[in-house]
Parts: sequence; structure tokens; C-alpha cells
Amino acid sequence: MNGQDEPILDIAHLGHVELLTPKPEESLRFFVDVMGMTESGRQGDSVLLRGWDDYERGSLLLTASSTSGLGHAAFRTRSAAALERRVAALRAAGHEVTRHEGNLGHGMSYRFRDPDNHLFEIYWDTEWYEAPPELRPSLKNQAQRFPARGVNVRRLDHFNCLAVDVRACREFFQSTLGFRCTERIELNDGSEAGMWLTATNKSYDFAFTREAHGIPGRFHHVTFALDSREAILQAADVFLENGVFIETGPHKHAVQQTFFLYVYEPGGNRVEVANAGARLVLAPDWKTITWTEEERKKGQAWGLRTIESFHTHSTPPLPDGKGDETVPGDDLSAEGIAS
Amino acid sequence: MNGQDEPILDIAHLGHVELLTPKPEESLRFFVDVMGMTESGRQGDSVLLRGWDDYERGSLLLTASSTSGLGHAAFRTRSAAALERRVAALRAAGHEVTRHEGNLGHGMSYRFRDPDNHLFEIYWDTEWYEAPPELRPSLKNQAQRFPARGVNVRRLDHFNCLAVDVRACREFFQSTLGFRCTERIELNDGSEAGMWLTATNKSYDFAFTREAHGIPGRFHHVTFALDSREAILQAADVFLENGVFIETGPHKHAVQQTFFLYVYEPGGNRVEVANAGARLVLAPDWKTITWTEEERKKGQAWGLRTIESFHTHSTPPLPDGKGDETVPGDDLSAEGIAS
Amino acid sequence: MNGQDEPILDIAHLGHVELLTPKPEESLRFFVDVMGMTESGRQGDSVLLRGWDDYERGSLLLTASSTSGLGHAAFRTRSAAALERRVAALRAAGHEVTRHEGNLGHGMSYRFRDPDNHLFEIYWDTEWYEAPPELRPSLKNQAQRFPARGVNVRRLDHFNCLAVDVRACREFFQSTLGFRCTERIELNDGSEAGMWLTATNKSYDFAFTREAHGIPGRFHHVTFALDSREAILQAADVFLENGVFIETGPHKHAVQQTFFLYVYEPGGNRVEVANAGARLVLAPDWKTITWTEEERKKGQAWGLRTIESFHTHSTPPLPDGKGDETVPGDDLSAEGIAS
Amino acid sequence: MNGQDEPILDIAHLGHVELLTPKPEESLRFFVDVMGMTESGRQGDSVLLRGWDDYERGSLLLTASSTSGLGHAAFRTRSAAALERRVAALRAAGHEVTRHEGNLGHGMSYRFRDPDNHLFEIYWDTEWYEAPPELRPSLKNQAQRFPARGVNVRRLDHFNCLAVDVRACREFFQSTLGFRCTERIELNDGSEAGMWLTATNKSYDFAFTREAHGIPGRFHHVTFALDSREAILQAADVFLENGVFIETGPHKHAVQQTFFLYVYEPGGNRVEVANAGARLVLAPDWKTITWTEEERKKGQAWGLRTIESFHTHSTPPLPDGKGDETVPGDDLSAEGIAS
Repeated sequence: MNGQDEPILDIAHLGHVELLTPKPEESLRFFVDVMGMTESGRQGDSVLLRGWDDYERGSLLLTASSTSGLGHAAFRTRSAAALERRVAALRAAGHEVTRHEGNLGHGMSYRFRDPDNHLFEIYWDTEWYEAPPELRPSLKNQAQRFPARGVNVRRLDHFNCLAVDVRACREFFQSTLGFRCTERIELNDGSEAGMWLTATNKSYDFAFTREAHGIPGRFHHVTFALDSREAILQAADVFLENGVFIETGPHKHAVQQTFFLYVYEPGGNRVEVANAGARLVLAPDWKTITWTEEERKKGQAWGLRTIESFHTHSTPPLPDGKGDETVPGDDLSAEGIAS
Repeated sequence: MNGQDEPILDIAHLGHVELLTPKPEESLRFFVDVMGMTESGRQGDSVLLRGWDDYERGSLLLTASSTSGLGHAAFRTRSAAALERRVAALRAAGHEVTRHEGNLGHGMSYRFRDPDNHLFEIYWDTEWYEAPPELRPSLKNQAQRFPARGVNVRRLDHFNCLAVDVRACREFFQSTLGFRCTERIELNDGSEAGMWLTATNKSYDFAFTREAHGIPGRFHHVTFALDSREAILQAADVFLENGVFIETGPHKHAVQQTFFLYVYEPGGNRVEVANAGARLVLAPDWKTITWTEEERKKGQAWGLRTIESFHTHSTPPLPDGKGDETVPGDDLSAEGIAS
Repeated sequence: MNGQDEPILDIAHLGHVELLTPKPEESLRFFVDVMGMTESGRQGDSVLLRGWDDYERGSLLLTASSTSGLGHAAFRTRSAAALERRVAALRAAGHEVTRHEGNLGHGMSYRFRDPDNHLFEIYWDTEWYEAPPELRPSLKNQAQRFPARGVNVRRLDHFNCLAVDVRACREFFQSTLGFRCTERIELNDGSEAGMWLTATNKSYDFAFTREAHGIPGRFHHVTFALDSREAILQAADVFLENGVFIETGPHKHAVQQTFFLYVYEPGGNRVEVANAGARLVLAPDWKTITWTEEERKKGQAWGLRTIESFHTHSTPPLPDGKGDETVPGDDLSAEGIAS
Repeated sequence: MNGQDEPILDIAHLGHVELLTPKPEESLRFFVDVMGMTESGRQGDSVLLRGWDDYERGSLLLTASSTSGLGHAAFRTRSAAALERRVAALRAAGHEVTRHEGNLGHGMSYRFRDPDNHLFEIYWDTEWYEAPPELRPSLKNQAQRFPARGVNVRRLDHFNCLAVDVRACREFFQSTLGFRCTERIELNDGSEAGMWLTATNKSYDFAFTREAHGIPGRFHHVTFALDSREAILQAADVFLENGVFIETGPHKHAVQQTFFLYVYEPGGNRVEVANAGARLVLAPDWKTITWTEEERKKGQAWGLRTIESFHTHSTPPLPDGKGDETVPGDDLSAEGIAS
């Protein structure tokens, strides 16, 4: 806080997520052909992708790797000064922050790690997407033409990491970056099992849930917004027709009331398509909703029991392969997808 | 601006709109039975109403009056200090600001007038809605039970005023309150015909369009958000079945891409139900979209021509009754709706 | 068959279903307040109900009883002569058919039992619904005003009975009444586990699935059509808000591709709301789809596993209470709901 | 009628429509790329196309021609005997019927002309669509994989012809083929301005409206069914993005309550995408709804005024070019699209 009751408002929104994939070509085909995203750049082993309503050049960086999981997640600040203020706050709190140049799709950034060792990035300078002629929209208040292909991803919505100590991560993001906690889960033993943070009027920009095996830095899923709940029902058919593994949904989360559908992309990472309808958190002093263990045992909003793999499957896979029973064995050869 | 590139972020969101109605009982029945809103308080000649997802006690104040139009519109600030900063900024710019106590549904506020003489209010202290037992929701992250009645208004979304000098109003709201202009219309003669301002991630919290008769202080419409575009199609049927005059829609605006439907409530005020889908303005430095006269002549997004009454009907009616040909004659007896 | 390749076309459509309920008042409140149906008559222990798009006076007959389950199901014929032809065919095949007068909502009917002892009725003379002034629709091609209340049931869609010998029932309905079988399930041992029959362009008007306990005459569910898939998602919220037990869904059946949601009404009977989208079976010579045991083990269309109670809960309950673990204990006092 | 009250049930459904186009390549691209249909055969100057839920090999025959308009429309009968019965009935009523072999997509047919000189065809033998491996659906009760491309046409729904004498055409189709009239328009002078006929549980399989210039054989539009009203809203965006001329809609017809959207395909023919929701006409004795001149002047269901070109634009164009002001000039060179 700047003062007694003044919120920190320096983070503008989630900018992009970098996903690692051991099957880069298949992952790329999935995001372009099935998800309906557009390739907007290549650099090294990475391909930049975007939804038609993302205003920046890219929102998903797909990077060939020996394994799956999160590369990094990045937030854009509200101004150049806001960026410097957050770097100062991180350093003042004893966190290591490094300057990062040569980014694909945006300017200079600062990188740091959360208490669970996930890599994060904040930046101000960015590239606004300029659609080539064949992708120019009919309405000038839109970034890119509606693709009418596959699932028609609209924009990046949020991501979800696992953490051994959820509370420590929440406090880190609240105190150093000013995120607000809209909802959380507190178990009977007082420990924290999940938390949802936002810097916008969306009810969350990212979430952390508990990692059960004590292994830091793991990733649960990345989520893209579609236009409507009907679009998500149609997406289920598109996934079915394309042989994409549907893990669970469509259904409505009790937490945050998001209408969701989870699939696995070819690299093994869990991908969600979701729509929150007209739901926004407008209250600047929103009172955090705390769910109890008993409440969460009721399952999802309309009674769907949370599927077992939701608690076991994450990326990268566990060293012993546990928690990945439901995923067909990945061969980990990493061809360069940008070559 | 506080500094070179620092935005003013003191306004949190649109809080409520006060509508004047010469037919208070009929207007109240319209908002409760047809719109599906809930009465949440009475004071003097006013009734407070709310949508099921509004977090404050009320979002619509319906006040019996000798005529129709806007009573006032109110914005909530992000903090107590933010409120004082905005009052100081208004006064520093030479505007008269008065303190207002005893408000229904929220605490002390400050009131002032825009350059077109509309009455505005800003406040910080508010009452969070506490649902009575029969209206308690099943999910604890929701303010009130879904009513399953009429049009099922979710929450207040925005309002639209007319102004003789749109540009002056825009500059007033940008400089004193920090609103950002996401879209505007500039005619061939360089004058400004419309502007859409926001303090949130919604692409607008209110709009001003040009008043054609040189009369200040007039009102165009208030808009409530429904859940989905399908909900708006269903609303059209509900209006039809209840004998509510549908002016135009459902259709999609080119400006802001809102999916809209306009009706007249019994007091003569235009009411819109709308849904913007998953559209949000996340860019903190969004570049204002300026529509030209030629572009606006194309009509709405899918080609619907803008209906004539959209440019002529406003509230209160013109002294000579012009511009209200399409509305059945109002008898202006104002019974107390709160008695 | 009339000739070599001539189909029997004497049945026009499913007309109504009679449900037995040991909690008549609560069941009535459920169908009127939550389902949004309209009461259209009373006779003895029965109340007649209807959806806003049902053209006949009623489509659901709710009858107070000492237990739950199916009273009877009724089909309307295409003509008076068609009715007599079907009676003759039933009698020629050795089935007992009795004439039934004094029906609520339609004229004289004939009643008979299927091989599993469920009671059926066929009739031609019917009462077209005449809406009272307050329920008259705005459009003259519609039976009744859209209610904008609860789930807004549109019309009766289909029902599902259990049978010890599914194949015998299928052959009975095909040979005597001319129903066409659009889909069926055949297990590895050659036995028949389910069949879906139609007399219309809907892909089914009723279904039979296997009864696991050897008890005849049991009932699985009755289904009402809503307007859209979005309406079914909204219905899930309405059920949630009203404390109605949601058994499973919303999801999409693989069989028939119906978008479904199952709940239990207060009397214990399973009720489905569903929408098949634009799907119709137009081919007069549609080739029956036969699902294998392996195919059905895959669960529903998008991978949802079929919930256990779907195979165990039916009405009336088993004598020993087995199969009804998931239902709160019913007290079986039957008050007259029509008194 | 066969007897006193026995309906003729020999026509099963609308099978396909042949459209003539002076811009065959552009029309083909429109139907494949924008409408999302699939090419399923070529013969001479014609290309056969289909929606993913059409069970026959094709539902649209696109034929290169010197002008636009209807080639022919075809109905499938319920049996071989039904086909012969209708031929006999047509001939008994003095109409010329010719046998037609070598059809693309179905077997032998009989052809005849209605009183307004449109060409019609009835047939029984047909080809069921066999999807190639890459277009095979995941669910075995579906004809073809959901394309996830463009507008995703589901199936042919209906067509609309113009006629100088609507009443004569209605009586022709009712008496010789057994169609039922569900709705009609009768003007104050007693003349008939429109009629909607059905052989199925759809509320209409085709319609005729009045031709204003006294020229026979003209065509108004062909309509394809999409999945939902939301799909039609999305289709409007797809048309917008692809530069397709949107004439009017999306809106809801008062007549038949269809949710509609009209565009012009490159050859000049009007094409509609529509969805009737869950609406079906199940009554075998449905009472024809007759709309008066005053009722029709109210416009569409929610008040949209019927657009002028709806009454003037038809295909082929008038000899003097009247009625086609809104269409960009066609150059009438007919390249072979099947070559």
C-alpha cells in the first residue's frame, strides 16, 4: 500500500504466458487449427500466438523444450513509472529482479521468481498487433478478423500454477505487485489450498492451487476466453471431432462461477476454454470469499464432482510419472518448431 | 494527470443512476416485474432497485417527478482519499462541489454538474447488499439469488446523456475525474458527435451523444447488463409479451460492438439491455477509436440503419413535444411511489 | 405394415405423461414455480399442467398417489380412423384394449399395457388450449404467453421407461403402433439394453432402458424441451437456487446427442430438461444406430461418466429401498393436490 | 385426401434445391468457405454441396448459368409406392410429369411444374452420404464431422419462391402432394400474399410469397439451418468479416417465429440462415394461422420493419433491372464451375 487505504494499481493485466512443449509441431497445430489462434512471430525455439481480440502482438509463447510446463507468465504495467515502482518494491522486499531485453512481441522486461520458483515477468513497452491485409477486421475497434476456425479463441484469460505453499505465494503477489485476492480456499487445518488474484475487473487474472507432491514450479493450466457459453459447448464438439482429450466439463465452477472446459494439448499441458458471462468484480474493496473444506467437497456449482486427474495431472510430469496416468506417454524429443 | 504518464485511477466504477418518472407506479412495476429487478429501499419519492449481481444495495433510484429524465448519476471512488482528491481537482478547476448527506443506499457524497448541466455524484462509503433469507443465493460469491423472473437484469452497465457540446463534456470528465475515452465520433466539420468513457475494463461506463435542439441536461438511456446475447433475445420476447414498446434491436452496435435492445419504460425513459460478450478493454493505454461521419452512416455492425427516434426521442421531452412522436402521450400526474 | 414397404404412420406424437407423486403439493409447486409450467385443469386427485408451447390443454398429469412412478403415457393419433386401425392391430395381436371415457384434457381413449406392464393410451379427440386473457400471447401462432418464470418449460419432449425385456417392448411398439427405432444399445451377450423410438421428426418420442432388478412397470424419467442449450445452463442455476437435487448434467448424450440436465422432483421422479438443437430425423428410412457395450462404456459425448444413480434410481422405489440411496427419505402421505 | 379425414403422408421432406448462378466459382467459394458446406460431387455444370447434418449425399446443387434463380427443388417421398401414388395423383389432376434419370446424388425422379412454372422433382431412391476418412464424425449417429469453418451450415431447411398467384400454388401443393398449410397471409382484398407449407414436424418446408411484377418462376431465397440463435449471431460476424452483403437481420419473424439472417450470395441469390429453436408443429390437424394485412404491417416479431429490398430483390433479376438496385451489377459470364 502507498498509504493507509490506497491500493497499488501498477499492474494493468496479464500479458502473455509461455508454455513449454516436448511436441512443438503438434502443439502448434493444436493452437492454430483447433484453438483457432494466429501465429504472429518466431524467435529461436519459440512461436508467438494470439487470439483475435488480444491487442498485443501475442498472448501465448509456445517454446520447444525437453518437457512440458510453464516457461514464464508476464504482466503488463499501467505505465513506465509503474514498472519501475514494482521493480523497486520487489527489490526492497529482497527479491532478485533481472532486466530482460530482446523479447519477442514486447519491449524490455524485468524477471523474477515467486516463492514457489515459477518465473514471472513485468513490462510496459509492448507491440500493438498490426493485422496483415487478409486478417484485417471489418470493424476498426477490433484487433483482428474473427477467424471462424476451430474454437475461435478470443483472448488469453488467466493461468493457474501449483504451489507447495499457496499462502506464501498469495502474500508475495499481494504485497509486491498489488494484486487483490477475490476468492480463496482454506482447509480445516488452517492451510491455504487455493487463491485467485486479480489486477483488473475480471474476477481473477491467475490462480494458485496446492501442489500435493512437494515439488515446486509446476503448472496446472492456461485459460483462453471464448465469446459465450454456447461457444464453449461448440468447442467441446470441436475437441471431440479432433481427437483432443477432454478431461472435464463443460460445467460451471462454484469458485468464481466460470463456465469451463478442460483439455490436454499435445505437449501434455492442460488448457481451459472458459467464459464468465457478464460477471465482473467492480468493487474496489471486494471482500475476499473464503471457501471451507466442506464447501469445496460439494464439487462444482451444479454438482459435478471434481475429476481425480484435476488433482494429479500437472506439468511438467512428476519424475516418477505419477499423476499422469491419464495421459498417453509422451516421447520427449524436442524438434525446433520455429525452424 | 499526476505526472508525465501516470493515469488518474480514482474512480472505481459507475454506482447508480437516478431516473425521474411521471408514472412512478407503472415504472416500478416495469422494473420489478418485467426487468426482474429487486426493490431494496424507499425514501421520500424514491424507490431503490437492484440487479441480482449488483454488490451495492442499489443501482437504480426511481424517483417520482413531474417529468422524465436523469435525476443524477453516481460514481464510486477507489478509496476515501481518492474521493477527496477528485473533489480537490474539481474545485481547483473552478467547479462547484457540494457535500450531500442522508443518501439512500450509500454514505456521504459530493455533487457537481457537468458542462451540460447534468447532475453527478461521487462517493466512497457504501452499503453492501445483504440479501434477506428468501433472496440468499446458493453460491457465496454472489450477491443475491438469481430471480428467474422477467428479463433477469444482472447489473447496471452504463448510461448515455445528450449534450449540446460533447467535446466540452468529454474534456471535463477526462481532466477532472480521469476517465479514459475508448471511442468517439468526429463529424466532417470537426465537431464531436459522441464519446464513450470508462474508468474500468468495461469498454465504457457512460457515453454522451449530441443534443440536436440546443437544450441542456437531457438524457438518452440507461443500460443494464444481462447474462448473454441469448438472454437479450429472450428479453425481446418478454418485452413483446408484456406490451413494452421495443424501439430497435436486438442488434450489434458498430461502436463498442455491444449487443443491444432498446425499449421505453412507462415513464418515457429509454432503457437498454445489453451484453458485450467477453469484450474487455485491458490496455491501460488504449488508443481512442475515432469514427468518421461516413463510417457512422453505415449504420450498425450488421447493417441495421439507426432508427430515426434514436436521434429524436430523449427525456425529458422537448417543451413543444417534438421528438416524442413515437411515445404515447404521458399524463404527468406524479403519484408518490414510495407512499 | 400396410404393404411391402409402407410405413405405419398412425401415431402423430406423444401427447401427455401421467406422473404419480406421494408429495402432490410439493410436486405441484415444483412444476409451476420452478419449471414454469401452467396449471390447466383438475380432476379427482390429478392436476393437469402444460408448457407454453404445448398446443393441447395439458401435457403433464400430476396425480397424488401412495408412491411415485408413471401413471400412464398417451399418444395422439393422426386421425380418428388411425385410432381405430391401431386398436384393431393391438387386438389382432392379442393385446387387451379398453375404452376410457371422461379424460381430463382430451376425449375418449383406448388403454393397453406394454409387455413390461406400463399403462399406455392412444386417443384422437383432444382439447386445444385456449389461453385466458392474462396468458394470451402476442403472436397468434403461439399457444400461450412465454411465462418468464423459473425454467420456462416449452413443451413435453419424451419419457423413458425401464423394462426387464427391452427387446420385447421395442418389437411391441414397432409392430402394433408403427414406431421407428432410431437408436439402440446391444450388449455383448446379444441382449438389448436400450432403445429409442419415434413417430415424428424428433429423433425419439420415448425410450426404454433395462431394468436391473427384474421388476416390471418402472419409470426412469420424463423430459421437457427448453428453448436452447443456454436455457438449460440457466435452468441449472434456477434448480441450484431452488434447492432442487441435480443428479447429472448439463452435458451432451452420445446417444441421440441430446443436451441434458437431470433433477429429481419432490415426489422422487426423475425429470430431465433437454434440447436437441436443430437436430431432426428427416429420413423416412433412417437406419437404426446400434451402440455396442464398448462404445457405451465411453460415457457421454464429451466424456462425462454416466452417474451411478442413473442406473439405480427409478420410480417407484424398489421394495427394499435399494437404488434410492441418493434420494432423501420420502414420507408417503398423499394429500389430495386437487382438493 | 385418401378418405374423409385421412391425410396424405407420401412426401417425407425437402431433399435439395438447385440454385443457378452466373458467378459459379465465386458462389462455390461462398458456400464452401463462408457457409462451411462440403462439396460432394460434380456433374456437368453443377457442383453438389451438403451441410454436416444432411443425411443424403447433397442438399444444394449449384449450377452455372447465364442468370440466377431456382433450377429446381426436390422432395423425397416416404416410400417407392408413395412416389408412384403422387405421380398418379399429379397426372390424374392433369399435370405433366416426366421421368428423370442420371441424377447426381439420388436415383430416378419425376419432374413437374407448379402453376407458377417453377420446376419440382420428387424421388425415393437416394444416396446416403458416406464421409471420407478425414470427414468422419466421432459420434456414429452423425453424418459428417462438424467442420468448424465459416458459418457451419447444419442442413438444408426450406426455400421460398415467388408466385403471381399464391393461392393457386398452395392449392396445387396441398391437393396433389398432401402438404399442410401452417400459416398464410390474406390481404384485405381477399387475395393471398403468402403461404407456408410442410410435410414434416418443421413448421414449414417451403413458402411462397407474392410476385409483384407478374413474372412467373422467380425465386426469393433458400434457407439453411444452423445450430442455435447464437450461431446465427456469430454468422452475422462471419458474413461481415467476409464482405458478404447482409440484407436484414438477425431478427425474429412474426410469421413462423423463425430467427433469421438474410445475405446475398455472389450469384445474386438471397440466402438465409435460420433457427427455429425448439419449435415444432406436432398437431396432425394444425389449424392454419391466417395473418391479416394490418397484422403484417407491424413488421417482424420485435418490431423491425421489413426491409424494402425484401419485396423487390429476387432472382433472376427483372428484365429491366428493377428490383435489384441494392445488388452490385452482375456480369453474366458463366464459367463452368465443374470443369
